[in-house]
Amino acid sequence: MSGSCLGNILKLSTFGESHGNSVGGILSGMPSNITITESFIQSFLNERKPGQNSFVSPRKEDDTIIIQSGLLNNITLGTPIAFLVQNNNQNSKDYKNVENIYRPGHADYTWHKKFGIYDHKGGGRASARETIARVVGGTIASTLLPKETKVIGKVKQIYNIKAPDDNATEGLNIDNFYCSCNQTVAKWQNLIKNALNSGDSLGAICEITIKNPPIGLGEPVFDKLDAELAKAIISIPAVKGFEIGKGFDFVNLKGSLSRDEMEYKDNKILYKTNKSGGILGGISNGEDIIIRYVVKPTSSIATPTNTIDSNNNNIQNLSIKGRHDPCVGIRSIPIAKAMVNFILADFLLLQKRNSL
Amino acid sequence: MSGSCLGNILKLSTFGESHGNSVGGILSGMPSNITITESFIQSFLNERKPGQNSFVSPRKEDDTIIIQSGLLNNITLGTPIAFLVQNNNQNSKDYKNVENIYRPGHADYTWHKKFGIYDHKGGGRASARETIARVVGGTIASTLLPKETKVIGKVKQIYNIKAPDDNATEGLNIDNFYCSCNQTVAKWQNLIKNALNSGDSLGAICEITIKNPPIGLGEPVFDKLDAELAKAIISIPAVKGFEIGKGFDFVNLKGSLSRDEMEYKDNKILYKTNKSGGILGGISNGEDIIIRYVVKPTSSIATPTNTIDSNNNNIQNLSIKGRHDPCVGIRSIPIAKAMVNFILADFLLLQKRNSL
Amino acid sequence: MSGSCLGNILKLSTFGESHGNSVGGILSGMPSNITITESFIQSFLNERKPGQNSFVSPRKEDDTIIIQSGLLNNITLGTPIAFLVQNNNQNSKDYKNVENIYRPGHADYTWHKKFGIYDHKGGGRASARETIARVVGGTIASTLLPKETKVIGKVKQIYNIKAPDDNATEGLNIDNFYCSCNQTVAKWQNLIKNALNSGDSLGAICEITIKNPPIGLGEPVFDKLDAELAKAIISIPAVKGFEIGKGFDFVNLKGSLSRDEMEYKDNKILYKTNKSGGILGGISNGEDIIIRYVVKPTSSIATPTNTIDSNNNNIQNLSIKGRHDPCVGIRSIPIAKAMVNFILADFLLLQKRNSL
Amino acid sequence: MSGSCLGNILKLSTFGESHGNSVGGILSGMPSNITITESFIQSFLNERKPGQNSFVSPRKEDDTIIIQSGLLNNITLGTPIAFLVQNNNQNSKDYKNVENIYRPGHADYTWHKKFGIYDHKGGGRASARETIARVVGGTIASTLLPKETKVIGKVKQIYNIKAPDDNATEGLNIDNFYCSCNQTVAKWQNLIKNALNSGDSLGAICEITIKNPPIGLGEPVFDKLDAELAKAIISIPAVKGFEIGKGFDFVNLKGSLSRDEMEYKDNKILYKTNKSGGILGGISNGEDIIIRYVVKPTSSIATPTNTIDSNNNNIQNLSIKGRHDPCVGIRSIPIAKAMVNFILADFLLLQKRNSL
Repeated sequence: MSGSCLGNILKLSTFGESHGNSVGGILSGMPSNITITESFIQSFLNERKPGQNSFVSPRKEDDTIIIQSGLLNNITLGTPIAFLVQNNNQNSKDYKNVENIYRPGHADYTWHKKFGIYDHKGGGRASARETIARVVGGTIASTLLPKETKVIGKVKQIYNIKAPDDNATEGLNIDNFYCSCNQTVAKWQNLIKNALNSGDSLGAICEITIKNPPIGLGEPVFDKLDAELAKAIISIPAVKGFEIGKGFDFVNLKGSLSRDEMEYKDNKILYKTNKSGGILGGISNGEDIIIRYVVKPTSSIATPTNTIDSNNNNIQNLSIKGRHDPCVGIRSIPIAKAMVNFILADFLLLQKRNSL
Repeated sequence: MSGSCLGNILKLSTFGESHGNSVGGILSGMPSNITITESFIQSFLNERKPGQNSFVSPRKEDDTIIIQSGLLNNITLGTPIAFLVQNNNQNSKDYKNVENIYRPGHADYTWHKKFGIYDHKGGGRASARETIARVVGGTIASTLLPKETKVIGKVKQIYNIKAPDDNATEGLNIDNFYCSCNQTVAKWQNLIKNALNSGDSLGAICEITIKNPPIGLGEPVFDKLDAELAKAIISIPAVKGFEIGKGFDFVNLKGSLSRDEMEYKDNKILYKTNKSGGILGGISNGEDIIIRYVVKPTSSIATPTNTIDSNNNNIQNLSIKGRHDPCVGIRSIPIAKAMVNFILADFLLLQKRNSL
Repeated sequence: MSGSCLGNILKLSTFGESHGNSVGGILSGMPSNITITESFIQSFLNERKPGQNSFVSPRKEDDTIIIQSGLLNNITLGTPIAFLVQNNNQNSKDYKNVENIYRPGHADYTWHKKFGIYDHKGGGRASARETIARVVGGTIASTLLPKETKVIGKVKQIYNIKAPDDNATEGLNIDNFYCSCNQTVAKWQNLIKNALNSGDSLGAICEITIKNPPIGLGEPVFDKLDAELAKAIISIPAVKGFEIGKGFDFVNLKGSLSRDEMEYKDNKILYKTNKSGGILGGISNGEDIIIRYVVKPTSSIATPTNTIDSNNNNIQNLSIKGRHDPCVGIRSIPIAKAMVNFILADFLLLQKRNSL
Repeated sequence: MSGSCLGNILKLSTFGESHGNSVGGILSGMPSNITITESFIQSFLNERKPGQNSFVSPRKEDDTIIIQSGLLNNITLGTPIAFLVQNNNQNSKDYKNVENIYRPGHADYTWHKKFGIYDHKGGGRASARETIARVVGGTIASTLLPKETKVIGKVKQIYNIKAPDDNATEGLNIDNFYCSCNQTVAKWQNLIKNALNSGDSLGAICEITIKNPPIGLGEPVFDKLDAELAKAIISIPAVKGFEIGKGFDFVNLKGSLSRDEMEYKDNKILYKTNKSGGILGGISNGEDIIIRYVVKPTSSIATPTNTIDSNNNNIQNLSIKGRHDPCVGIRSIPIAKAMVNFILADFLLLQKRNSL
């Protein structure tokens, strides 16, 4: 009930402040007899962590997974899998000058009003370090999905530069930009360089595609697959919008052009188009599931801003120090993929109860 | 676990097929000693029901609320409030020609694949009649909100015609179009008339504003206020996208222009702008909460379409009969307001546990 | 969160005051394609209802099940099954003299202190009429159990008369006393006659046996099968104790005599004894599950008692009128069987998630 | 959904195999601004741990609490409190001779049938080491209770020796036997010495009293306070029965002697007796809450037994080695107190939602 739990059959309960001992969680509800190795999880954690090139945060976080329980010789026991990643490289001094200051665009003020106390160091529990637990949970959950189901993430737009449409399923991550187009990546690098130079940051639109999902996932009425995906994605720090299939563009389409026609051909059921994004009535129809979301620009930038502190003093020209990403949207991709994997796996287990 | 339950402290459990005996639900978790009358609920149900003017569905549904439990002389007992609305005007014959046919844009196929059985009459449980229970639940929940908190809904765009921006809080519902601009409404009526004449339908973008919300609502990490609102709104039939504050437009703003600066002035904490839409770090900051969503055009239209039936026969030129709304987005407003009221009230009760 | 919901995968949400419109509930999570008829449910409701012979309450409650949703031609759709039983024979006048009086042994005082309001008529929500929803939910759930699994209930003791041990599985319900021994039933009838004549009531010890249960039901640590059965049984009105297997008698056995030895014989795994009552480490071992519980004597009796009213007036010699059972333990059997069926079915669905 | 989670508003999610890296959990839902120190928790862990005198297990477990999150300078942040205790003194060699053998009275067989895999070392997840997380969770939760509410535990009977009734609230723990009577403790020590000498073990009956509990705790119908206490207590390893107030002895009392009369005297509401054990209709009435439970004798004893292994071989004369308690009932007391504290605190937070 503190908002740190996710899932129905699979349950991920997470913990951790940015500059506390560790961040981590407990994943319960995993079936037994599934092979899970720390190195498998570590590879996804490495994808998430900052400091990988000059266009993301220069912080070097050595995020090493440590599993406490739930495995016997790398096989799941059916018992809770507890894991943690220690906070070794946290530099609390970076946050000394913002102690008691409500940073614009951050949760300092709302958190303080809600709880009457907050840990300002590194954003405390509101830090993006909490997403480590999402990546671990989603990675373990992904082992439950059918072999043919693949979750792919792409950056589609940074500031005013869009990536071209693209059906490739390989070579998607040039220079860790989750894009298969060299020219676009070069333009984005330029945009980011300029933003960094001017002490500024950029937003992004990202797309997650689930190739070959199982049919029949999602529950009617409130727990629709798209509704749960929306919640999961919007819960990622800095995400401010979500859409599925044609999304907001549906307003420009009449009904006669909005429906995906079906056809039976060569002994198979086919959809001729996929405007709905693979979900109808909240339930997957077997087509690729396509969702998009927007990530706002990083709020912690060198460009000065005005704000107040917790004693109601006005603060002028606050410049946020620290080692922040100029475009957090890029680094959202492994987190979003983890969330999607988790939601799919949970619905897959849930679906098993619809027949005896 | 059938997806028909909503909420944490307040729990709404709903039921009902479109052409079954009734639709309804049980609202549990309501505090005791709150005054609730059937006529208060009825007024919101009346706002939802079809048949109110020539631009919405001509079906006349006499949706009368009947309360079974939980009240003593219109005062809540603290026990579950069960309610139902009987299905009197359902015309099952309208659906005779689509028995076993998977209607494009509808949940027939996914539902059938999921459960191995479905009630095709009126869409069965996938019918928008299930939203009656949402309206009742949200209306009862709204009595828990502070007097000054108001939830307002506006249609902002139908097809290619946008409504002008508008700060009015009264006179918002000209001709049941949830718009305060006569000219826009006239244009929309024209659009809809043309769509009806050509056997077609239109999508819409809608906006919900929560005026003067309590500060501190929403829970960290997964159960953020915006994440729960996203899930609640996307779960409404035909909704395909959700955004908060500047939403997808954040991609066009640099970080230096994305933050809402704070100021202390005249003994009050002020935000100078509200780009975040009233939520930071998943927690309300006291500013108006502003969300937008898109509703796809009605799929059930006269324009013929191709599809298959449950025996894999190809069906050509299916024209969907029945009495359908040409623009369901308009009628989504009372449903979305109910969902927002419910989520706010649930978080308000949840917040009570953060101090002793 | 109002305490009226039961279950994990199967969810039973119940409602209803004794003298309100109806009592009932919503059962969600039932798999699709299961045959359920109203007459099947009705037969179990009839077993529960009072007025069947001279030794139970003379109230004639015509408890007719009405199903609102979730079935299509008596087949489950996988959607919530809503049901209700109308309150036709409630005699509110019987309760006129106890309005505002806290009846000893009843929940009037605690309910009033908890909610600040309560419906005194027939006990309101605290009435045993709420058990109608338990019987309906448990009866529907029982259709999920394997054919060979049978839930049997026996009265083992009324006041100081014990029933002999008995391995019979038929003829167990002589004169609706859930006992296969004519002599015992005759003695019990005598006891009850005397209790009625002296305006008094009697307690009982009852036993539920689950013959041939599935192996592997129950979840480790908190949600053990015996723990959930304990909660389910103790939640039945007037139950004050629960034990499994040898139960409290284990204190009289040394460890060397407390263990059930295993043997492999004739190609089968056998337990030589069943002191544990069919559950080890919270998980069923395939042996019969045997639980016992105690039901206190009815508090509403003619024998006068002293108490107070809600204005702190002392009330002398209150004699409780109404048509009450002299030994409610007898009528607890169909309710306890329903609870046990429900818990087993829920765990069976839950167990389906332990493998892929 | 793996059974390792407890609570509604307070949520305790636990993990850990006996011989894995650690055991621990996450407590979420704790209000902010509560003072919690590791040394406070440690004192309760020390009470639980084995090796304290010659009558309990000689294992020396150095169970040191390590808190990972949720506190800032010993003040709760309102965020999840993660904690762990490392498994340092686990002697896996003790379990070498029982690998693949289903120990009678233990969960080996049921666990193996349920999950298809189990960790035999020290009982794996079925080990009583999981109760460490219960003690930590309950201890932290106890800080939410009113100052005047005290949870007291007593051993009432070991084998055939009962402790005298006792109203003392101090000096209750002579020689760690949770008893205030020197003579009884001496007799029990003798019983245990004899049991040890003969390679046997003993059962016990224990009693938990909640002095001065808040009125109004517990929720109607399914989540009654006594029902949740029953589940919590029965979930403790080796507990086989539970009762409240007069419990099973109610069968010997007529209704006229079973009710607790009320009286208004000296400006106070009084109950003249407390046969109900402080709970009526599932809700606390303000009287002391009194519950009793039975703990079966330790199954791991030197006395040989017969069983099978996982290959269906019959095993004769298995003698269980290891360092086991001859009467685990004694050591159940701190665990039971923790469970009771947790349930009370959770209901206290839940009760806060019954008014606005």
